[in-house]
Amino acid sequence: MCSAEMQPAPRSIRLHIGLFGRRNVGKSSLLNALTRQQVSIVSPEAGTTTDPVEKPMELLPLGPVLFVDTAGLDDEGALGAARMSRSRAVLDRVDLGILVAESGVWGPFEAGLLAELSARRIPTVVALNKSDLASPRDLPATVLQNMDGTPVIAVSALHGQGIDRLREALLRAAPEGHFDSRHLISDLVPPGEVAVLVMPIDSSAPKGRLILPQVMAVRDVLDGAGLALVVQARELPQALSALKGNPALVVTDSQAFQSVARDVPDAVPMTSFSILMSRFQGDLAAQVRGTLAIENLRGGDRVLVAEGCTHHPTEEDIGRVKLPRWLNEKVGAPLHFDTIQGRDFPSDLSPYKLVVHCGNCMGNRREMLSRIHRCEAAGVPITNYGLAIAYSFGIFDRALRPFPEVEGFLHACRA
Amino acid sequence: MCSAEMQPAPRSIRLHIGLFGRRNVGKSSLLNALTRQQVSIVSPEAGTTTDPVEKPMELLPLGPVLFVDTAGLDDEGALGAARMSRSRAVLDRVDLGILVAESGVWGPFEAGLLAELSARRIPTVVALNKSDLASPRDLPATVLQNMDGTPVIAVSALHGQGIDRLREALLRAAPEGHFDSRHLISDLVPPGEVAVLVMPIDSSAPKGRLILPQVMAVRDVLDGAGLALVVQARELPQALSALKGNPALVVTDSQAFQSVARDVPDAVPMTSFSILMSRFQGDLAAQVRGTLAIENLRGGDRVLVAEGCTHHPTEEDIGRVKLPRWLNEKVGAPLHFDTIQGRDFPSDLSPYKLVVHCGNCMGNRREMLSRIHRCEAAGVPITNYGLAIAYSFGIFDRALRPFPEVEGFLHACRA
Repeated sequence: MCSAEMQPAPRSIRLHIGLFGRRNVGKSSLLNALTRQQVSIVSPEAGTTTDPVEKPMELLPLGPVLFVDTAGLDDEGALGAARMSRSRAVLDRVDLGILVAESGVWGPFEAGLLAELSARRIPTVVALNKSDLASPRDLPATVLQNMDGTPVIAVSALHGQGIDRLREALLRAAPEGHFDSRHLISDLVPPGEVAVLVMPIDSSAPKGRLILPQVMAVRDVLDGAGLALVVQARELPQALSALKGNPALVVTDSQAFQSVARDVPDAVPMTSFSILMSRFQGDLAAQVRGTLAIENLRGGDRVLVAEGCTHHPTEEDIGRVKLPRWLNEKVGAPLHFDTIQGRDFPSDLSPYKLVVHCGNCMGNRREMLSRIHRCEAAGVPITNYGLAIAYSFGIFDRALRPFPEVEGFLHACRA
Repeated sequence: MCSAEMQPAPRSIRLHIGLFGRRNVGKSSLLNALTRQQVSIVSPEAGTTTDPVEKPMELLPLGPVLFVDTAGLDDEGALGAARMSRSRAVLDRVDLGILVAESGVWGPFEAGLLAELSARRIPTVVALNKSDLASPRDLPATVLQNMDGTPVIAVSALHGQGIDRLREALLRAAPEGHFDSRHLISDLVPPGEVAVLVMPIDSSAPKGRLILPQVMAVRDVLDGAGLALVVQARELPQALSALKGNPALVVTDSQAFQSVARDVPDAVPMTSFSILMSRFQGDLAAQVRGTLAIENLRGGDRVLVAEGCTHHPTEEDIGRVKLPRWLNEKVGAPLHFDTIQGRDFPSDLSPYKLVVHCGNCMGNRREMLSRIHRCEAAGVPITNYGLAIAYSFGIFDRALRPFPEVEGFLHACRA
């Protein structure tokens, strides 16, 4: 698996995660296990600083986060007024809390912190470390009753146990706003410039309507003060010649990828709605990495085609007919395809050599990230329709050129 | 009321209405009453011709229709084989039937025709003429039982009674396809040419989405092989200068009418989504005629603002705040506004000097035509949001220029 990281995200859009807990409870080793990196948490003398230490990190499946360490807030007695004031400075700017504890040492410090986090409506997950020594059931019943729904995950940072469950719990607990902060397309189209949006209208398109990713793309171009030139694939040459200059970007439905790639000059950035959706509703880097697994597929390998919703007629044909055909052609031998729809996602992914997911336009990003996370935890590569189609058509690199952060990452993966 | 007619519609899109009934039952006078015109129905000798006579007409609220007269099929005895063969030639091409009868003379001819119409699933309305002499209740009970849901409307063509009820019944009975055959915009944008669609995004726009008339317009441009350049009003000058030539049409949300009218060169056709919706979902000629009544409004006059659906947040502000303000400014004194939403439409329209209806994007055209018909029957002018706003802003004529058939009609109304 490729471990290259994407370009750093700006600090402002990172989810701020407060890491709370007494000294010696295993915060550093837990952070190492979560981020799969060796992180040295600076631990100043307790009580000597009010400036918590910040660590920008990539925490899958949540994406870019900023860990705010609260080493100054530990267990030197009860949570006094001075300590509370310092803790408020942290609490004022975290979006999510991890309270690291040990089952045997739950006391007024932990209870007070949890009450304060709850009062401020900061979603929190309790990581009960050293679970090789104990379990959440070892917490006193009175403590558990006062948890008020806060999830308690038994982990062993030392042995790497429970880390995936903790990640999943953090994903579930993260505030909804974290998943809404991305642009679908508008960051790729400077104000006043043109995005050409290619929308083939075939028999499966709903009468008199556009499908949701297309509507979302037009709207986001408008939100960014761009101009959206919408055409069918057949009219693309006329659209390009109606413009005085080159468009800033051409986006096509994946089904028309080949003709659009031919018609669009190489100098013009080009991608698909589905790849935009991977970036917006999923995790582009993880799904690009997953796409590369197509190269290793062999005839008879099982591929899971997953659709997020059950009522999208246009996806029907793509997921069941076209995509399998194109993948078979790419691999040069028939693969075995299973198809699922809606909320059911198999708990056992081990039979699959690849998962191909739809763009998830109807679902929410948290759910999509959870599925990506489950695939990665199971060691099963996951891609999406547009990425898999671009790869099958041999235009993968070109379709990723609008995303320089992934292009560099892709290069590193292949190196 | 202006009686000028719109330009004739092509024969193919006219609803074909078969007019059945014995001689002397009042078909000619009923047709005169329905069309408000003196029509001479050619009545050849019964049985001497198999060629029915066709009359293209404007039948409000159904629009352009073609009456197919069946003078050759009358009551010279029972409906024999030869007669059936002639009648089939008519039945093969009518979309809707009117069976004109008299209550006292219902016999095998009428019963046979109705059975044949029913077997062919041609929706039919029975007009029981000379109702000044009798009523549907005078039909034998056995006849009524065999009607199988066919509406029976008592009319007096001679005295003009029941004609509005007959029109309403024809509207209800007309096949759904009749209301779907129009273009929203694609007939105004030649293949390969550009329609600029101006969509202001304000706080009332649903997050990440476009409102339905906007989506419908983009889709219809694509269906017609046109190019849709979608922009906010602020970017319109940039959009026009990004194109090598003039667009075929500029369509704007009515709220941005004034700035768009300033920015679009006079030579470029310009209108609004709402006016397109009047043509597509309502009756543009009738609503243009209704709009002219704004000129006669005086302070204190009651105006009914009617919205077809209850869940359209963007209409909220328009119908309740902006439109009343602009109409008050146009009239120069405060009007009295009542607002209704959804399926309730007042049975008594007499308090109102004007009805202003939304574009009815969520409703069906049959319902909208029914409302227009009820307004006209009550002598109350009806317009729509876009037409009323264009009139208030003094850009009515310009906004109607893309519709030459209505422009001529408007000219005639004012002459």
